[in-house]
Amino acid sequence: MAYSGDPILVEDLLFKPVHSLIDQSLHSRMGATTTNGDGFGIGWYGDGPTPALFKCIEPAWNERNLQEISRQIRTPMLFAHVRASTGTPVQRSNCHPFRHGNWLWMHNGALRGFTEMKRELALAVDPSLYPQIDGSTDSETLFFLALTFGLTDDPFTALARAVGFVEDVGARHGVENPVQATIATTDGVSVWVFRYSTEQQTRSLFFSTAMDKVRALHPEVEVLHELGDETRFVVSEPLRDLEGAWQEVPESHAGVIRPGDDEIRPFLPVPPVR
Amino acid sequence: MAYSGDPILVEDLLFKPVHSLIDQSLHSRMGATTTNGDGFGIGWYGDGPTPALFKCIEPAWNERNLQEISRQIRTPMLFAHVRASTGTPVQRSNCHPFRHGNWLWMHNGALRGFTEMKRELALAVDPSLYPQIDGSTDSETLFFLALTFGLTDDPFTALARAVGFVEDVGARHGVENPVQATIATTDGVSVWVFRYSTEQQTRSLFFSTAMDKVRALHPEVEVLHELGDETRFVVSEPLRDLEGAWQEVPESHAGVIRPGDDEIRPFLPVPPVR
Amino acid sequence: MAYSGDPILVEDLLFKPVHSLIDQSLHSRMGATTTNGDGFGIGWYGDGPTPALFKCIEPAWNERNLQEISRQIRTPMLFAHVRASTGTPVQRSNCHPFRHGNWLWMHNGALRGFTEMKRELALAVDPSLYPQIDGSTDSETLFFLALTFGLTDDPFTALARAVGFVEDVGARHGVENPVQATIATTDGVSVWVFRYSTEQQTRSLFFSTAMDKVRALHPEVEVLHELGDETRFVVSEPLRDLEGAWQEVPESHAGVIRPGDDEIRPFLPVPPVR
Amino acid sequence: MAYSGDPILVEDLLFKPVHSLIDQSLHSRMGATTTNGDGFGIGWYGDGPTPALFKCIEPAWNERNLQEISRQIRTPMLFAHVRASTGTPVQRSNCHPFRHGNWLWMHNGALRGFTEMKRELALAVDPSLYPQIDGSTDSETLFFLALTFGLTDDPFTALARAVGFVEDVGARHGVENPVQATIATTDGVSVWVFRYSTEQQTRSLFFSTAMDKVRALHPEVEVLHELGDETRFVVSEPLRDLEGAWQEVPESHAGVIRPGDDEIRPFLPVPPVR
Repeated sequence: MAYSGDPILVEDLLFKPVHSLIDQSLHSRMGATTTNGDGFGIGWYGDGPTPALFKCIEPAWNERNLQEISRQIRTPMLFAHVRASTGTPVQRSNCHPFRHGNWLWMHNGALRGFTEMKRELALAVDPSLYPQIDGSTDSETLFFLALTFGLTDDPFTALARAVGFVEDVGARHGVENPVQATIATTDGVSVWVFRYSTEQQTRSLFFSTAMDKVRALHPEVEVLHELGDETRFVVSEPLRDLEGAWQEVPESHAGVIRPGDDEIRPFLPVPPVR
Repeated sequence: MAYSGDPILVEDLLFKPVHSLIDQSLHSRMGATTTNGDGFGIGWYGDGPTPALFKCIEPAWNERNLQEISRQIRTPMLFAHVRASTGTPVQRSNCHPFRHGNWLWMHNGALRGFTEMKRELALAVDPSLYPQIDGSTDSETLFFLALTFGLTDDPFTALARAVGFVEDVGARHGVENPVQATIATTDGVSVWVFRYSTEQQTRSLFFSTAMDKVRALHPEVEVLHELGDETRFVVSEPLRDLEGAWQEVPESHAGVIRPGDDEIRPFLPVPPVR
Repeated sequence: MAYSGDPILVEDLLFKPVHSLIDQSLHSRMGATTTNGDGFGIGWYGDGPTPALFKCIEPAWNERNLQEISRQIRTPMLFAHVRASTGTPVQRSNCHPFRHGNWLWMHNGALRGFTEMKRELALAVDPSLYPQIDGSTDSETLFFLALTFGLTDDPFTALARAVGFVEDVGARHGVENPVQATIATTDGVSVWVFRYSTEQQTRSLFFSTAMDKVRALHPEVEVLHELGDETRFVVSEPLRDLEGAWQEVPESHAGVIRPGDDEIRPFLPVPPVR
Repeated sequence: MAYSGDPILVEDLLFKPVHSLIDQSLHSRMGATTTNGDGFGIGWYGDGPTPALFKCIEPAWNERNLQEISRQIRTPMLFAHVRASTGTPVQRSNCHPFRHGNWLWMHNGALRGFTEMKRELALAVDPSLYPQIDGSTDSETLFFLALTFGLTDDPFTALARAVGFVEDVGARHGVENPVQATIATTDGVSVWVFRYSTEQQTRSLFFSTAMDKVRALHPEVEVLHELGDETRFVVSEPLRDLEGAWQEVPESHAGVIRPGDDEIRPFLPVPPVR
């Protein structure tokens, strides 16, 4: 889940009515009901350009430190992520979001065949960035590949090249459908989102319509009146019952959410030139 | 889940085929699929009369220390428990099973109105036992009440008095249906089980039939041939498809599983005499 | 350590130059050099009247969540504590500071013979407060006794009665010198401090002189110029080399630090009337 | 610390008299007195050829799971390690000992300039081994380099080549004195030990003399009579007062401890051939 908009108390986003508006399933994944995930993390922008991170490997719902700080921190930009481990250790350095400078990154999905491809992917990371890889996940490696290919200058092109590179490595290792990814990344101002998988069957990804339009459609939903016009949410599975409130990112598309007009465009991996 | 029988590798009980025989739902509750619980604990008898405990607040399925030691420990008596917190903190001292001397105790359910009753229940614990209460749960308090009422001498009577006492305290505090409990407790030789709730709607509780009979009924189930004749499992929800393999403990009944003949008898709380 | 003064970044207090000014030994106890303690906690006042808590059982110095949030939180009142366990479990609910409503409490020292006295002390806690005791430490029990004896109305009298009560219980249990305590407690505006032990040999306790005076004495110390006039620190062992900067709380004395004039007065336990 | 000899209860080695015989400083580093380290790990041989691992990031001395299992596990070969982080995260995957197949490895010291050298060192790891690097430490990378250079066939040569390689990479990156290392590694039968640093100023390393000789020298030390003739300890700083009991591994030497005669020989890094 990502939030962009007027500064808001983290508690309101994670534990209060706004939350239930956004994404019932995060609520569930945070462990309130049945499931917990393998680690939870939030990243937010506050004092200074560098975002802050809070990550824990315990179920988020009962993590009292998270509850405490969520009542003390206001932010105009929050990333929140529940991890489902695909085999790598459950430890802080493997929890999303990942950070580099003033950028945050989170990824749902997997790089299939990562064990076989890992060395070749790591070698392709810019040598000056390589030592900053802290954990052992496919998601963090993909982030560093994107950084290597220019994420901070042009996210769309960088991701296209990073994904194209992974698919090329996968092909050489006989990995079928190596990439499965919904991704959100931000520099603290704009949020770029990606929905792509090699087999063209990617989990869903949505972002919210401009809040004034949603409010006009559903004036009876009280919580909408607490949210500023520039509010945007990015979620994987929105509630169904707010017609007109959610914009789906189509299969193999990318988008950018920012002050002013948002944009959605096709996403096509760019294979490496040999 | 409780196991009693020939010494067996803990890994076989928790992570291997035997496990799937016993209790699919524990498998699920351990976090392999969707849910994790708020802490996991095992207690087992090994060297010496005092059982050992291993407890963790991380999801059991990915807890690597648990996986490691489960491959190194053989035991004729294992208790395993996944906790679902009903509000008290998620910390080691609140995880089941609880231990006192050579006894183990685990409890599913809750004492309703525990916050209101807690002080009075704690006061009723034998003063010499009181300082040994480590955590803050209703389950541990009920254990110490049972010890106070003579658990180590006569478990059936001790539990009847402990439950009767809680119901009496509950009545005075206006708590409806204060007790909801399936309980297993052991001295390392016998396992006593209890199924009781004030409102007579208790979660289910089963133990397994003598293994030679189960094996005769289902000779095609390979894993049964790995288990000794005195093997007994205690579970809350058995798999349905092994006819004749499971003995249900009826509503408001208690039982004892031991070398030789098992026994099931009605369970009736004994209110305190004033 | 306690800080009261102009809002300041927690990072400045715990990890930056201001910190080294205050208390080299906390620095050491936080684990930067050789020792770590058995848990670390901070409490601070931010949004709303109720203070927030962050506690961890890992060594503070390497706790990355603590580092992260310390850069995001400004507060006019911070309590920080490194615990040295005297036997009770190392778990979040046993870490200082403890909180009740808008009050914080931390305690260095111990109640000797706590295991023997625990039940009687717990029984003396107001029944309405008893269920809120979360952990198992002597320090938290002393807090709840102080609350029972009127901490929020008159801290000096409440502590005198709480300590007098513990000494009385100790005497009846044959415990020599039951109380050893330096204590700090706050309602978010004033900080009350206590230095007392039954044997009259209490660890040291200091608070800082008004900052304008310290600055006048030591104009060359740069960090002093970053601190407002109403800044006060409470520490157990100050650096020696800032003459005139620290006011010692004498043996068996208590004090209050607040906007306006501070006060120090003798502390004499009040035994219970029978 | 390493133990090799008759099967012994882990508790005796870590928490009992035998322990105090061996290494007071481990006792201290485990957190009983003042220091805790940044993670603790043990590896031992039990059922099957693959050793088991138990690692925790909490202070060992208060880690109750460790205490519990230490009373249940007997082993003829134990490695125990307290980590002092040199900057990499405090997490399970960074705790020693490290394991590969039936081998264990632990390292005190550091690779200086590791951040600069990390990528080049990782690239030199055999591609089939690379994906098995779980953590982010210099110690684990050195282990995988040693494996790459033939550790399981000829530990002396493999280490000489691994260290020679690191020194060569260090030289090219302008790192002075890149290697500081005392190392112990085992296949479950023999223990190889190494003491080497580029600047020829390595921390001390000792192993114990044959137990029958130690016993003959110090018949009054009771705990010695509990230990079999083939008992060997490897420690960094032995107690001083048992004359004849400890064999120092000299600067720039390596050794092997095994059933039958032990051996010590000079250690000389072998630089890579270009």
